Amino acid sequence: MGYKVEVGISNKHVHLSNEDLAKLFGAGYKLTVKKGLKQPDQYAAEETVDITGPKGTLKGIRVLGPTRKESQIELAATDARVIGLELPVRESGVLDGTPGVKLTGPAGTADLAKGAIIALRHVHLSPAQAKEAGVKDKDWVKVKTFGSRPLIFENVLIRSGDAHTNEIHVDTDEGNAAGIKNGDFVEII
Amino acid sequence: MGYKVEVGISNKHVHLSNEDLAKLFGAGYKLTVKKGLKQPDQYAAEETVDITGPKGTLKGIRVLGPTRKESQIELAATDARVIGLELPVRESGVLDGTPGVKLTGPAGTADLAKGAIIALRHVHLSPAQAKEAGVKDKDWVKVKTFGSRPLIFENVLIRSGDAHTNEIHVDTDEGNAAGIKNGDFVEII
Repeated sequence: MGYKVEVGISNKHVHLSNEDLAKLFGAGYKLTVKKGLKQPDQYAAEETVDITGPKGTLKGIRVLGPTRKESQIELAATDARVIGLELPVRESGVLDGTPGVKLTGPAGTADLAKGAIIALRHVHLSPAQAKEAGVKDKDWVKVKTFGSRPLIFENVLIRSGDAHTNEIHVDTDEGNAAGIKNGDFVEII
Repeated sequence: MGYKVEVGISNKHVHLSNEDLAKLFGAGYKLTVKKGLKQPDQYAAEETVDITGPKGTLKGIRVLGPTRKESQIELAATDARVIGLELPVRESGVLDGTPGVKLTGPAGTADLAKGAIIALRHVHLSPAQAKEAGVKDKDWVKVKTFGSRPLIFENVLIRSGDAHTNEIHVDTDEGNAAGIKNGDFVEII
């Protein structure tokens, strides 16, 4: 039996810097919490933006808060193709050399020079949970799923620290490929 | 080292019965070959249809030939969600209890009572290839991928016979989740 981790499927979403938030929603604008997420202090905001690539626009894409140092656009490969983008798989925050997109909000636009990625699948664990699972921050593990299309994700990154708690983040392509949904459990093997 | 199999990513597509072909394109209509597929006698047709579900329509979806005993609509879960469908994962041809959709062609429509599925991933092998791989028709195997997001597909069905040759069929969600593309190689392990 492996260590059990709860599934969180990440739909396409946007993290904004304070500077881009001001461009899109107006100077001094603050995000409004719509719903808290499982990871401490993280939330889905009421705000949405449009994301434009070379071949089209994805409309009404959810902003997640709080704001970050740099804006980051997380799309599944399927979403990216719709707007003509081929994106690299990247760890959150590692944005050098990634494609940019144009964001449009109610107060204006932001032309990003970089920041669009396919998120690298990863497991969040608190330090106590990591100890119980026998892993540590930055480890790579394999994760077995038990949905309608069972598979083993290799090269899954562990992210552990006080701001983390038990959850695996995969994108919609990965969730659909495994036939798993939010709240299901997988195992680190 | 496992037995090497070439990747074929199945985009959303439609197989038609002769009866539905006539409804959509006219009595006596014959499909036109656009491009042969790797599996013997299978081809992408010039013809496309629109697929309508409870919440929308997917336009211009490729028909594959030749015609079959029953029409079958193969969508990735991501595609299905766009038109409001939640589909079961099924082996090709096992359609009892599956949702129907409305198909629209240039000459008319066909309201299908069943036939929309997420295709069960599977490996095609000739009898000689199956022997070399150490498997037989209807076996279940595991398949390891080597793309940008390595994983092991469990529960992969072997389909072997004279009408088959070395190829794994996965859908776009599965291809994107693994970071693999047409012509890549995976291994039966």
